[in-house]
Amino acid sequence: MKKIGIVGGTGYTGVELLRLLVRHPEVEVAQVTSRAQAGQAVADLFPNLRGHLDLNFVAPEADALADCDLLFYATPNGTAMQQVPELLKAGVKVVDLAADFRIKDAQTWSQWYGMEHACPDLLETAVYGLPEINREAIKNAQLVANPGCYPTAVQLGFLPLLKAGVIESTGLIADTKSGVSGAGRQAAVSTLLGEAGENFKAYKADGHRHWPEILQGLRGMSSNSVDLVFVPHLVPMIRGIHATLYAKLSDSSADLQALFENTYADEYFVDVLPAGTHPETRSVRGTNTCRIAMHRAPDSDTVVILSVIDNLVKGAAGQAIQNMNLMFGWRENLGLESPALLP
Amino acid sequence: MKKIGIVGGTGYTGVELLRLLVRHPEVEVAQVTSRAQAGQAVADLFPNLRGHLDLNFVAPEADALADCDLLFYATPNGTAMQQVPELLKAGVKVVDLAADFRIKDAQTWSQWYGMEHACPDLLETAVYGLPEINREAIKNAQLVANPGCYPTAVQLGFLPLLKAGVIESTGLIADTKSGVSGAGRQAAVSTLLGEAGENFKAYKADGHRHWPEILQGLRGMSSNSVDLVFVPHLVPMIRGIHATLYAKLSDSSADLQALFENTYADEYFVDVLPAGTHPETRSVRGTNTCRIAMHRAPDSDTVVILSVIDNLVKGAAGQAIQNMNLMFGWRENLGLESPALLP
Amino acid sequence: MKKIGIVGGTGYTGVELLRLLVRHPEVEVAQVTSRAQAGQAVADLFPNLRGHLDLNFVAPEADALADCDLLFYATPNGTAMQQVPELLKAGVKVVDLAADFRIKDAQTWSQWYGMEHACPDLLETAVYGLPEINREAIKNAQLVANPGCYPTAVQLGFLPLLKAGVIESTGLIADTKSGVSGAGRQAAVSTLLGEAGENFKAYKADGHRHWPEILQGLRGMSSNSVDLVFVPHLVPMIRGIHATLYAKLSDSSADLQALFENTYADEYFVDVLPAGTHPETRSVRGTNTCRIAMHRAPDSDTVVILSVIDNLVKGAAGQAIQNMNLMFGWRENLGLESPALLP
Amino acid sequence: MKKIGIVGGTGYTGVELLRLLVRHPEVEVAQVTSRAQAGQAVADLFPNLRGHLDLNFVAPEADALADCDLLFYATPNGTAMQQVPELLKAGVKVVDLAADFRIKDAQTWSQWYGMEHACPDLLETAVYGLPEINREAIKNAQLVANPGCYPTAVQLGFLPLLKAGVIESTGLIADTKSGVSGAGRQAAVSTLLGEAGENFKAYKADGHRHWPEILQGLRGMSSNSVDLVFVPHLVPMIRGIHATLYAKLSDSSADLQALFENTYADEYFVDVLPAGTHPETRSVRGTNTCRIAMHRAPDSDTVVILSVIDNLVKGAAGQAIQNMNLMFGWRENLGLESPALLP
Repeated sequence: MKKIGIVGGTGYTGVELLRLLVRHPEVEVAQVTSRAQAGQAVADLFPNLRGHLDLNFVAPEADALADCDLLFYATPNGTAMQQVPELLKAGVKVVDLAADFRIKDAQTWSQWYGMEHACPDLLETAVYGLPEINREAIKNAQLVANPGCYPTAVQLGFLPLLKAGVIESTGLIADTKSGVSGAGRQAAVSTLLGEAGENFKAYKADGHRHWPEILQGLRGMSSNSVDLVFVPHLVPMIRGIHATLYAKLSDSSADLQALFENTYADEYFVDVLPAGTHPETRSVRGTNTCRIAMHRAPDSDTVVILSVIDNLVKGAAGQAIQNMNLMFGWRENLGLESPALLP
Repeated sequence: MKKIGIVGGTGYTGVELLRLLVRHPEVEVAQVTSRAQAGQAVADLFPNLRGHLDLNFVAPEADALADCDLLFYATPNGTAMQQVPELLKAGVKVVDLAADFRIKDAQTWSQWYGMEHACPDLLETAVYGLPEINREAIKNAQLVANPGCYPTAVQLGFLPLLKAGVIESTGLIADTKSGVSGAGRQAAVSTLLGEAGENFKAYKADGHRHWPEILQGLRGMSSNSVDLVFVPHLVPMIRGIHATLYAKLSDSSADLQALFENTYADEYFVDVLPAGTHPETRSVRGTNTCRIAMHRAPDSDTVVILSVIDNLVKGAAGQAIQNMNLMFGWRENLGLESPALLP
Repeated sequence: MKKIGIVGGTGYTGVELLRLLVRHPEVEVAQVTSRAQAGQAVADLFPNLRGHLDLNFVAPEADALADCDLLFYATPNGTAMQQVPELLKAGVKVVDLAADFRIKDAQTWSQWYGMEHACPDLLETAVYGLPEINREAIKNAQLVANPGCYPTAVQLGFLPLLKAGVIESTGLIADTKSGVSGAGRQAAVSTLLGEAGENFKAYKADGHRHWPEILQGLRGMSSNSVDLVFVPHLVPMIRGIHATLYAKLSDSSADLQALFENTYADEYFVDVLPAGTHPETRSVRGTNTCRIAMHRAPDSDTVVILSVIDNLVKGAAGQAIQNMNLMFGWRENLGLESPALLP
Repeated sequence: MKKIGIVGGTGYTGVELLRLLVRHPEVEVAQVTSRAQAGQAVADLFPNLRGHLDLNFVAPEADALADCDLLFYATPNGTAMQQVPELLKAGVKVVDLAADFRIKDAQTWSQWYGMEHACPDLLETAVYGLPEINREAIKNAQLVANPGCYPTAVQLGFLPLLKAGVIESTGLIADTKSGVSGAGRQAAVSTLLGEAGENFKAYKADGHRHWPEILQGLRGMSSNSVDLVFVPHLVPMIRGIHATLYAKLSDSSADLQALFENTYADEYFVDVLPAGTHPETRSVRGTNTCRIAMHRAPDSDTVVILSVIDNLVKGAAGQAIQNMNLMFGWRENLGLESPALLP
């Protein structure tokens, strides 16, 4: 049994990590930190964990953290980078679910996250934790940058097309939609049920932090120049991301269905749907699966890819555990095999 | 007081027409037809009308219909075209909220609606009831084809750009999202709360009936060839449409904000939001308003237009009443002036 | 035109007052105060008011307030009582939508609201603004205490039974359910869509502030001693209150349907439904109506009353305007006649 | 591995059984029947099962059914009773999730379910499958009548009080609230998102089929006469039941918290919450747990019990599997140990 710690465990990513980890056969959750809730039972804050986890939140302490085999950072952006260098020296493995290590270029990172990076030297060694792209590197990584939720759905959707070179790599469009849990568990007017319920809107159409992360990923898939328009929207539901992706075909004769099926034939967590179907976010609720379907728009050389994930699982906690499984050499889907809750 | 009839009054379009008409100062609702519910009090089916409407549903009869000054057809596609020719001869004005008269080309119509058109000769004389484009023709029309919900939101969003010629007219994309009331009030598994709640999905990505209607409209706005990719999605909410529109700028120096504001300066029902904002569907709930904002995507020559309407009002019943007001020479916003219900 | 001010206009009660007042034929909204938002356009915060209200929030100032004919206090509990005494001296009429003047006994008030009352002498002269009980007093009042949302639904449900003496006045039970807008527009974790969506729970089963208010009202309806168990619940929807009321019949032969219909025969805003039916909260959405139905439980001498209102209208802003209409001698339903938005 | 069949697998109970059974370590799902969908892949209808279940629906055939070790009947009321007698003779174990064997008195059953009972002699031998009451009998049963959803939540809430005799057994009230999945997956107007969303209502206040079932259960817990008022309500959410129970204390000094904790000390699936708390339906979403809290109403001798379950799990499929585990002598919580999905 490996000893696992969660740093910053009071948000939705924290509770989702715990939901999955308490049933994982190879790990023991050794500590869950929170300065604000220190002393409170974790299961008092998250009653779904009653009977499954008998721990109190503790304030984070360097020694105790260093005593874990692996730490999940579920903290706000900018926290992990302050603590990770020392932990790595102590031999701890780290999966950061925030954005601190996702972007390779420190200047780009600073521009989008509004602060100086505390350890820019680690940006190169950190491995971007999208296993369908970086599996081997993740297995050997000590520090994994867990991808953002939108970036996961968008990159898995474009990957087969860009790698095969069957689309034009410029003029890509990602029209994405997320449930409100993507905004986190902090008190805010804009995500009240009274505000976000029975409502639909775009937000940050002028620039969202996930845009440079996605661009970096897409550029790694193609030898040509890549550009992307990315518009996120808020859906009146709790979980789920739906990415609707548009690209112009450069090879109009390509068998896209076969291309997707072949690309993901060995991927447990990517499910290519039959031609002509439409994935539903609920079909992946609570699971680490990404379901994808593709369509040719009528009278058009545009391909439309539909990609859905659960933002809290494949878009956060589940992918982090998938990465952990790889880092410890375990079966990749360990603890991640339950079907989605439907309805 | 004009005598108004509603043919097919048991659906969401019917009840929305009634909600607005019972407060309209110049009309009297003379009859509401339904074969299935004949004899039942309308307010028993729609309890929001208790105290506002003291009518029973009646089976449709030609003489009684011909006795009205204006009829709203809120029937399934294919019904109005059977009855309208005779009614027009009788001098009745007709606004068809179904699709029977929206498409000018009978063959295209047949292809998408799966039946022969019963009166193709009327397709030319019927006026497409989007007042922001066809106001003068509507004033003189006897038969108005009320636009579809998606087509209203999409056309109003593209109109200023196509007319001004500042975008490339090919490669247009309309990623649209609708609340479930767009699917109507009939019993169906797919729109149960247990199926459509807490879920998001695209549908008919391979071709939706509103696509040829939109294309016809967009082509009327531009002297260049126009093509469009149109993908609709289902949102877990009751009312509202959000269209996210993408186009490449051909004139990158155009002042788009000014262009939209000027285009719609005199339009009561089109509200151009300040630059940098995002319209919310709830801001038009229950109203006949279309709110629009536009954005330039970062590092891109793509313009993103965000256009929201209430699918049951500006997308159906409200626009039908706006058309009626024009057809009778009344103030265009008569009976349509209440602010949206928010929250 | 009377000059109306709203003190504390950034919450749901504020925007609902404005939605209704901008269409009221006899009033002009002269000012809307907010310390925090002073200078911002009201319609920027509440986009449904764009085109309907051209005012900025202003910081509250005594002189400007005193210049209004009537003020609605939509402030947190404890604010109105600080300012109202002076305003009354200046001749301004006041409707307080908070709880400051609802409870006649200052000590009870202090116990439940956790502060000393600033003007206990006004508690007696303030009129409890439930028109169906206090209509004549309201007409002559300068200070009206607008009832709470739960108290409105519960009192209107029990009123006919207690007044007629056909139920036992002890052992009353009110199991009540409210949409989340009842908790207001302030940022809070518990009413996030991620927390309150897809969830149902009771709260404050050990004692809610509306309990003493309801008790005071019920005791005024009966010459016998009255006691009540009151349990509120939170419903995953935005608007609406449903009160399910239980009482033992003392006169088992009473014609309850006739009793309710007679009691409310002349009340525009209370709609007694046919026997055997169940009112829906959506049937009153956006309206000032209370719909009521009653049932005899099988094999039991218990009567079950079902009472629904829109918590923001008959439970707050609409009832406040109903009171204003009475205070100015206008038709009671002026500006409050639109049917509910359904669906 | 035991061979399991599901008869009538196209509803919510069916898919929920499958979600749990595909991860159960001791069973193999051998067949899922549906006349209407025969030939279709189960995972086409329920995409959450893609990759977990490789079966097509089959039309029910007596021989194939008799070849299973245990059958779950997830059919409409009245189906199981036609087929069960023969299956029992063939040695198959049966858990009926419909109502055919829940009520001991054939006449009462006929009255509430509107048909003659096909095998009234089996009513006595069938065991009512509420393990917290009937554990030993279930272990030895060949035919188990799985309880209704409301009856499970209500009986578990009243059980400690009635058995201990600390409440008056007459005048009991159960005000219950259910998500819409309780109404099943069949097409119906009343459970459309457009009808049941943003809405709350009571239904069947004059008599619901679960009332006699609950009464029968409560009467088995007390030697005194028992009566009950039962009012169900529909909540705009998918899963979850909340029962709010009211009873008069006969022993006002009883330590209710200790009573509940002691009663359920050894029950894996009943979780008594700390005093003063309120259970949330989401805290049991997807799990077989019932969470209960109790309150004393202020100034009253009434106890209020709050009891929540997931109607599709402890209220249907999960409890059926709990019964199966008992019938096969397995650990009672096998396959039922995952925490709830929250948020």
